[in-house]
Amino acid sequence: MSPSLVANGDFAAVKAAPVAGRLASVYSEVQNSRIDHALPLPSVLRNPFKIVDGPASSAAGNPGLFLLCFFTSLHFSFYFCLFIYLDPFLIYLNLHANEIAKLFPHLFGQPSALLVPDGADSVRSDQKLKIGVVLSGGQAPGGHNVISGIFDYLQDLAKGSILYGFRGGPAGIMKCKYVELTADYIYPYRNQGGFDMICSGRDKIETPEQFKQAEETAVKLDLDGLVVIGGDDSNTNACLLAENFRGKNMKTRVIGCPKTIDGDLKCKEVPASFGFDTACKIYAEMIGNVMIDARSTGKYYHFVRLMGRAASHITLECALQTHPNITIIGEEVAAKKLTLKNVTDYMVDVICKRSELGYNYGVILIPEGLIDFIPEVQQLIAELNEILAHEIVDEEGLWKKKLTEQSLKLFDFLPQAIQEQLMLERDPHGNVQVAKIETEKMLIQMVETELEKRKQEGSYKGNFKGQSHFFGYEGRCGLPTNFDASYCYALGYAAGALLHSGKTGLISSVGNLAAPVEQWTVGGTALTSLMDVERRHGKFKPVIKKAMVELDGAPFKKFASLREEWAIKNCYISPGPIQFVGPASNAVNHTLLLELDAQA
Amino acid sequence: MSPSLVANGDFAAVKAAPVAGRLASVYSEVQNSRIDHALPLPSVLRNPFKIVDGPASSAAGNPGLFLLCFFTSLHFSFYFCLFIYLDPFLIYLNLHANEIAKLFPHLFGQPSALLVPDGADSVRSDQKLKIGVVLSGGQAPGGHNVISGIFDYLQDLAKGSILYGFRGGPAGIMKCKYVELTADYIYPYRNQGGFDMICSGRDKIETPEQFKQAEETAVKLDLDGLVVIGGDDSNTNACLLAENFRGKNMKTRVIGCPKTIDGDLKCKEVPASFGFDTACKIYAEMIGNVMIDARSTGKYYHFVRLMGRAASHITLECALQTHPNITIIGEEVAAKKLTLKNVTDYMVDVICKRSELGYNYGVILIPEGLIDFIPEVQQLIAELNEILAHEIVDEEGLWKKKLTEQSLKLFDFLPQAIQEQLMLERDPHGNVQVAKIETEKMLIQMVETELEKRKQEGSYKGNFKGQSHFFGYEGRCGLPTNFDASYCYALGYAAGALLHSGKTGLISSVGNLAAPVEQWTVGGTALTSLMDVERRHGKFKPVIKKAMVELDGAPFKKFASLREEWAIKNCYISPGPIQFVGPASNAVNHTLLLELDAQA
Repeated sequence: MSPSLVANGDFAAVKAAPVAGRLASVYSEVQNSRIDHALPLPSVLRNPFKIVDGPASSAAGNPGLFLLCFFTSLHFSFYFCLFIYLDPFLIYLNLHANEIAKLFPHLFGQPSALLVPDGADSVRSDQKLKIGVVLSGGQAPGGHNVISGIFDYLQDLAKGSILYGFRGGPAGIMKCKYVELTADYIYPYRNQGGFDMICSGRDKIETPEQFKQAEETAVKLDLDGLVVIGGDDSNTNACLLAENFRGKNMKTRVIGCPKTIDGDLKCKEVPASFGFDTACKIYAEMIGNVMIDARSTGKYYHFVRLMGRAASHITLECALQTHPNITIIGEEVAAKKLTLKNVTDYMVDVICKRSELGYNYGVILIPEGLIDFIPEVQQLIAELNEILAHEIVDEEGLWKKKLTEQSLKLFDFLPQAIQEQLMLERDPHGNVQVAKIETEKMLIQMVETELEKRKQEGSYKGNFKGQSHFFGYEGRCGLPTNFDASYCYALGYAAGALLHSGKTGLISSVGNLAAPVEQWTVGGTALTSLMDVERRHGKFKPVIKKAMVELDGAPFKKFASLREEWAIKNCYISPGPIQFVGPASNAVNHTLLLELDAQA
Repeated sequence: MSPSLVANGDFAAVKAAPVAGRLASVYSEVQNSRIDHALPLPSVLRNPFKIVDGPASSAAGNPGLFLLCFFTSLHFSFYFCLFIYLDPFLIYLNLHANEIAKLFPHLFGQPSALLVPDGADSVRSDQKLKIGVVLSGGQAPGGHNVISGIFDYLQDLAKGSILYGFRGGPAGIMKCKYVELTADYIYPYRNQGGFDMICSGRDKIETPEQFKQAEETAVKLDLDGLVVIGGDDSNTNACLLAENFRGKNMKTRVIGCPKTIDGDLKCKEVPASFGFDTACKIYAEMIGNVMIDARSTGKYYHFVRLMGRAASHITLECALQTHPNITIIGEEVAAKKLTLKNVTDYMVDVICKRSELGYNYGVILIPEGLIDFIPEVQQLIAELNEILAHEIVDEEGLWKKKLTEQSLKLFDFLPQAIQEQLMLERDPHGNVQVAKIETEKMLIQMVETELEKRKQEGSYKGNFKGQSHFFGYEGRCGLPTNFDASYCYALGYAAGALLHSGKTGLISSVGNLAAPVEQWTVGGTALTSLMDVERRHGKFKPVIKKAMVELDGAPFKKFASLREEWAIKNCYISPGPIQFVGPASNAVNHTLLLELDAQA
């Protein structure tokens, strides 16, 4: 080993980024090395290809075939799309499909697309394209690579095309705030974390006026296509935009890309949302470190809350990577209708057993959204919102009589600090701010109280010290893993190809992800086939339902089969920092591999 | 890229650790790859060497030469030992040196030792050694490598020797709790984080009875030597043990090794404590990620509190690695006698300036020990401890009249939550628990309040949202960097060599650390030369003074020359995850390089 003189008094080894948005930046040695990291492409993208349409589910729009189409589509959803909510009543489903067909008259039932090798290279026109791209919603590692993938497609196969980046998310489309993305502009962002190339935003294009604004921008920039990089909501929006443009006979086509560290946008054709791999590996590194610390110190229970408000995929994946003593999966809590007391008791039981074995330490993983999964907590909060809006909170606590018996019991069970937080911290609408509750600290206090009780009863003789952690922001903008870097690049490149061949209303789909990159499949999946409807304010609204952790899915079953052993024995694994070269640098996350295995 | 099937449904790529304490563990691919990572040794250790004594400062014990010796020692301390407290009064210093000489009659003034090449390989005896090793104090990445370094020295150059590991820190010595460390036992811990091979502890060997127990253990195990791996306190203890054994004509010799992620045990001969490099790089990875997130999202100020209770080296190093907008260095706050209001105002001034430039986001680093550096806070806490011990805290707040005017003003300036914390959370002695105060959250609230004021005055028009982070436990047990792995291995190997040649009361010293490992120097520094005295309970107590951040040292000066630019421009650097292979894998931290540069 010869230590290279990174700093040598003058940060000699860090060089200024060449141009553009990151002009003022100097880069670390690792950042620099990533910029020029050569990305592999699936072989179908490296050679002449053509785009073929998928099977008969594409019969939509044909009235005679509608019912068949509907059942085919249902069948498709049921067997292939993990996240489609299965309802036992066909009439209800029929209603849903019917509504989706009504909402997307031009797109419903259109075929998915697959890229296949083509000796003749027949697909591509000589057309120069004008394409816009937008980042929508929360940051996820790899977003910059989707953009560079689109750009490189245009450079490679549609020379002379122009790529516009809309600034600050969908608002950039509506306000026509954009930047032309050139090779120089994109270069410093290649394989880099963050969304700062064009930034993101959480606005939605919803109202007729907003659709109008989007149309105006599309016309003004003469857009042939738009790539929307986002999660479930953003891809729903992408589909609505595609439908709208098509309905108005505009040439602008829309392709979505699956983004979210939460991992809750996926189905068979779209086996992963990008960013999940990197974020989980960053959190797992930290969890692994904390585990070794727990075992070395021998006196702390680390309560680690992990990002992921709606689904517990991140928590589950981190558990599979690190083998913690206790892991709470929100979907299981909801399915089993567990109470906060149940969750606390489960933790306390394990802690007591471990104490008998001489272990007064451990690591516990908790999903950020845990509270949202507990029905009784939701009920309490609803009652509190109601009471606090109308009643005076007297010091004697008479207001508490307005609570139902169950909610009162829960309220009294909560630690005082949490009670105060529930009473005092309100959002601008006067509602309790559930998101502000530090669940990991609340659980530490509740576990402490219960252990004290058991100590007095004589059933616990150990010592308990809780340490709280929240891992969230650290994972959203890390340097993408080799997997996410390549996956995103392929997603972007594919989006370019789909637009080039005139496709719209599809989500870029790269599959066979357990194989080497060369063997990855590439295509586009009809966004309407991912769609469900929800009734809001008396109207049907299309939604892509979030893919929750499935309790009969392979990742959860794997976890469930091992957690008892993990609880008692110390099977900790420390994944270590993400590597870009050498051992583990091309590892794929457990969730993806287990799901692909189960499908195979 | 070809994704390797790490899990493939069955965690195929993780194998069980072969034996011993980590028997039940499975390892991650990275952990596995590190076990067999071949460590380089300084060339002086790879070839025949002899040990030569250092210069004339070794004249101690000679009464006639005492004053000269003292001045030489003083000179030595002043110029070479960064952490020796310089007092302008020679008489005072003379007194100190005198007291150290009295406390260490057998060791004071002994020469430091240097390993030099020796064709004849004359030093080593054929003696088989019995050596004990102990880990003392908080975890630091690399501890296991010090032990494997000692073990390998014995295997290589004193075949047939035995290495005992005392369990659970110094208590293991006193209670004679130990394990014999064999090749099989050590193997799974090579290059791994944590201290769990033999675990650590915070006990001290202080009382005559405790020294007696240590003697008994040394006799019982027939120890030729003992290696104490620890921080300033533990190395002071090592020196006392060495003196005690020598004084009793026991054969047991004692060598220290410099450990602490805080980086506050160092001098010219011992340019770094191990673990600092790894811990800082782990924190800097997270800070870098949060920075990119801040820039991408554009709406959060991240307040990051970093471990390091006494000195702010970690915070300073992380700042040099990542270029945050605001960094608070405790030593500067103390030197400039800043108040909490001053610190808040500094932050608010930068936030306002940035807002004018259109940046309503940023990253702020705060050392864990900040509060301990602010004189007025110390004063307030002292007063509160006094008042709360004797007064009833009335709801009307009459008790507050007992506070001095300055403390009352500060108390009223604090956010309500902090006021309550100060009043309610007491340790078993009834004292305010300063360590429990989440400084980063306190500062967010204080900044919020001040910004609100400025908004009303019209001097601030931005939006402020604070996000708090504490990075601590994540960094103590990570996989050691290549630097820490090699450094620790050399420290351990050197400790073996020093004991083998009969040295005692030295701290293992590896230098020239900016050069490739082959060129590192190896030796031992007299622990008494690092020693100062403090008067406690009317008695002189020897202490190794913590090396604080020096405001005229190269790292702080570098930081100070750049921080104004970092405040306003966004010069964020994202160091990325620690790499073990490829770019940046052999990088050395800035603090060390800048200090070595300044000495050169």
